[in-house]
Amino acid sequence: MNGRFLIGARAVAREETFRAVDPVQGIEIEPSFSISRDDDVAEACRLADSAFDGFRELAPERRAHFLETVAEKIEALGDVLVERAMAETGLPRARLTGERGRSTGQLRLFARVLREGRWAGVTVDPALPERQPAPRPDLRLRKIALGPVAVFGASNFPLAFSVAGGDTAAALAAGCPVVVKAHPAHPGTSALVGAVIRDAVVVCGLPEGVFSLLQGQANALGASLVADSRIKAVGFTGSRAGGLALMAIAQARPEPIPVYAEMSSISPVILMPAALAERAEALGQGFAGSLTMGAGQFCTNPGIVLGLDGPELDRFLASAREALRQAPPQTMLTAGIYGNYQRGLGILSGNSRLELIAEGVPGIGCNQAAARIFAIKASDFKAHPELADEVFGPSSIVIRCVSLAELASVVEGLEGQLTATLQMDDADLDAARSLLPLLERKAGRILANAWPTGVEVSHAMVHGGPFPATSDSRSTSVGASAIDRFLRPVCYQDLPDALLPDALKHANPLEYPRFVS
Amino acid sequence: MNGRFLIGARAVAREETFRAVDPVQGIEIEPSFSISRDDDVAEACRLADSAFDGFRELAPERRAHFLETVAEKIEALGDVLVERAMAETGLPRARLTGERGRSTGQLRLFARVLREGRWAGVTVDPALPERQPAPRPDLRLRKIALGPVAVFGASNFPLAFSVAGGDTAAALAAGCPVVVKAHPAHPGTSALVGAVIRDAVVVCGLPEGVFSLLQGQANALGASLVADSRIKAVGFTGSRAGGLALMAIAQARPEPIPVYAEMSSISPVILMPAALAERAEALGQGFAGSLTMGAGQFCTNPGIVLGLDGPELDRFLASAREALRQAPPQTMLTAGIYGNYQRGLGILSGNSRLELIAEGVPGIGCNQAAARIFAIKASDFKAHPELADEVFGPSSIVIRCVSLAELASVVEGLEGQLTATLQMDDADLDAARSLLPLLERKAGRILANAWPTGVEVSHAMVHGGPFPATSDSRSTSVGASAIDRFLRPVCYQDLPDALLPDALKHANPLEYPRFVS
Repeated sequence: MNGRFLIGARAVAREETFRAVDPVQGIEIEPSFSISRDDDVAEACRLADSAFDGFRELAPERRAHFLETVAEKIEALGDVLVERAMAETGLPRARLTGERGRSTGQLRLFARVLREGRWAGVTVDPALPERQPAPRPDLRLRKIALGPVAVFGASNFPLAFSVAGGDTAAALAAGCPVVVKAHPAHPGTSALVGAVIRDAVVVCGLPEGVFSLLQGQANALGASLVADSRIKAVGFTGSRAGGLALMAIAQARPEPIPVYAEMSSISPVILMPAALAERAEALGQGFAGSLTMGAGQFCTNPGIVLGLDGPELDRFLASAREALRQAPPQTMLTAGIYGNYQRGLGILSGNSRLELIAEGVPGIGCNQAAARIFAIKASDFKAHPELADEVFGPSSIVIRCVSLAELASVVEGLEGQLTATLQMDDADLDAARSLLPLLERKAGRILANAWPTGVEVSHAMVHGGPFPATSDSRSTSVGASAIDRFLRPVCYQDLPDALLPDALKHANPLEYPRFVS
Repeated sequence: MNGRFLIGARAVAREETFRAVDPVQGIEIEPSFSISRDDDVAEACRLADSAFDGFRELAPERRAHFLETVAEKIEALGDVLVERAMAETGLPRARLTGERGRSTGQLRLFARVLREGRWAGVTVDPALPERQPAPRPDLRLRKIALGPVAVFGASNFPLAFSVAGGDTAAALAAGCPVVVKAHPAHPGTSALVGAVIRDAVVVCGLPEGVFSLLQGQANALGASLVADSRIKAVGFTGSRAGGLALMAIAQARPEPIPVYAEMSSISPVILMPAALAERAEALGQGFAGSLTMGAGQFCTNPGIVLGLDGPELDRFLASAREALRQAPPQTMLTAGIYGNYQRGLGILSGNSRLELIAEGVPGIGCNQAAARIFAIKASDFKAHPELADEVFGPSSIVIRCVSLAELASVVEGLEGQLTATLQMDDADLDAARSLLPLLERKAGRILANAWPTGVEVSHAMVHGGPFPATSDSRSTSVGASAIDRFLRPVCYQDLPDALLPDALKHANPLEYPRFVS
């Protein structure tokens, strides 16, 4: 690890540098990383643009092989990668090992997607030369890549939502060159993974502009990347303020571009009456486990829980309190995130309507967060809309509702969410059915009898949802459909077969599935 | 026709009114139409929102039947509709009869799309309870409607891109209630079609909020519609300035929403050398025909034509000149459009680098436009970027290129387009192949040996393209895929079968196609 960033195949050093910080000890760690300048952004984008046509028209098998090569090379890094990520994030080994598996699984899923072929959306209207009053031409639709994509690494998943994470995997699969702006909290992890992708580009004989990796701490770096005219889409996972800033830059360009920002969610969990009566204690334990997972730094952390007020809800709270009492403090990803969490708790603690139900074991080390559970009456929650703002970390509010109608009205007042969860038994079925339309309008994923943390990487997954959960509810950032974000349809009318791309040729050499009208 | 607008089932009269103008005679025609107020906008949106959950979960067969009922009732209006549209637009009977057929065909296409079921994108990852290290839950994805949609009628297609046009048909098919803001150039045509949809809503037993029709001339009316929090997407076909204004309003909302604006295209046509040598005269005639179709008021009017300079291009120009000499003047849709066309011609005429090649028969009546063809050297065209701005009307610029490389560099300098066309013979194949990546990046539809005017309503059609052709290159406003614009995916995790929507139930009662991983 030499502290350089990547402009295509070239490792570049600059005078200005920064270091990562070990959040457990609060000290800077070696080496220094060069900070990319505006001219580096421009050069990375120029290379990406020049690589675009070749990369998008590569045989899908070759692009699939490239993704698999990246996955193999990430695995070949072995402990070096996991240990650097541990040092930079404070996350434990088991979690990072699991996250690595998820990341390589993601790359391999997209390799399968490319071979299977539905991604190209091939649709054919054969010519109808005899049709009256006018013949129909031969019309063939396929989807092609949008263009070079800017990807922002996220702090909370240094592998799965970072340099070779979901956005990068989906964009590369679509045929888009990628310029990554690494998250400054884990520059070393980013550099290790970035070098792997660069090597895979070389091994697979691809144009070097397919991948570049920029490093730096200033927002201005990301801003100039999104503003570059050669960038055609943006993938981002992070704060609401960060996502909104990128959306504004993308919209202000002479050519506006789509921004896929996954931003803010409090992922409501609803405790239906029969389920609560039946298993309040188990639910309380499950809640505490989901709440504290990864120091509460999951996008789908259960930020609010809703139930009918009464003795069953008190049993639930008592169980959660007991579980939380034994929850050890956990190091948060950065001093900034820890500071924001403390500020968020301060706002909650200052609200006299909120009752403190439970606390985790207090932190003693650097950036160590203790979990918190609060409770509040639904009417008070509705009177304090600021309580629905995400507090990123292991904190949650349980809302005591007097009726299911009041519970529904609280959910109706929420903004868009990544998930909505029903804890329910058979006896709750009718009531759950009446809530379902509301949950569908509010969230991208609806769960029964699970906790929202943990996102399967598969074909049917939706990790998205109405604003502000994401900037674009029509998409997902996890799962096979994530490739759709980086594609656009093109129709070919009466082109000679020799001129048609392979996906559309009459003989269908790629053997892609096609809808023929 | 009583001059009232529609808030759901209710026909509403207001004090302030306006009249349509017959563009052929330049005189106002009866009756007066009430102008919708801001409180009418709010009430239409409230009704649409209250109708949303019921309408989107209607059995697809019932929504299909509703679309077919609208189509039948439009046909049942008979000559009354065509004649009112003729009076308000100056378009000839044959054109409007054809456009009516296209509109009803569009509605019926979406009925078939609903029955066929691919629109819902059903995807299933069955549970894997034995998987290690963790079981996989049952995951099921379907697409649901976005919410109430605002549709803006377009001036140039008073039926096919207006009240019951492509945007409305696609949004209703998706399950979105629609609030139409009628184009003020054809309020009577709009009112006739609006009443038909309202009647179909009643006959089909749907909630009245499924459809409302607002009338008025001021931009503020459309602005308050797009700003209403209950509107979740916007469909618009019109000017670049109009589209950009709606995009800005949509982005400035507390909850930004997608705007599908189809705006501006000069739809380049490339005359490849062998084709030009072989059939310059026929190409010239075809060009003149496409250019003057509908007084040049088609979105895909060929605004620039590119070819290698030389005697073949001169033959092409001579043929086009001859054809244009006999082209009668045509009445444009409105005095405003006619005025803009004259201003556009004024700018072109004032450019000393442009050579006037051909003129249509001069107009004598009100709003009558004569066609124009200009020519210019490629180097001069590139030095005057304002010449690439759309002049809406029967005017086009032929660009004399010294080489195919120069021709490609002119196309490279263009903004995004709805179409790009190759006039080519077998001997042009290699050169055409080298141009194809460029054309794919620039346009939503690529044609060989046709003219871009005329858009098939079918499964493989793309009427879209990179900005500013549209605000969102990932979509089309014509064809079956237009429904995708108004849908978003939702994932259902481990929901009991009794709670799953029909499209996702294990028994698949809708018999929709599904991808099972």
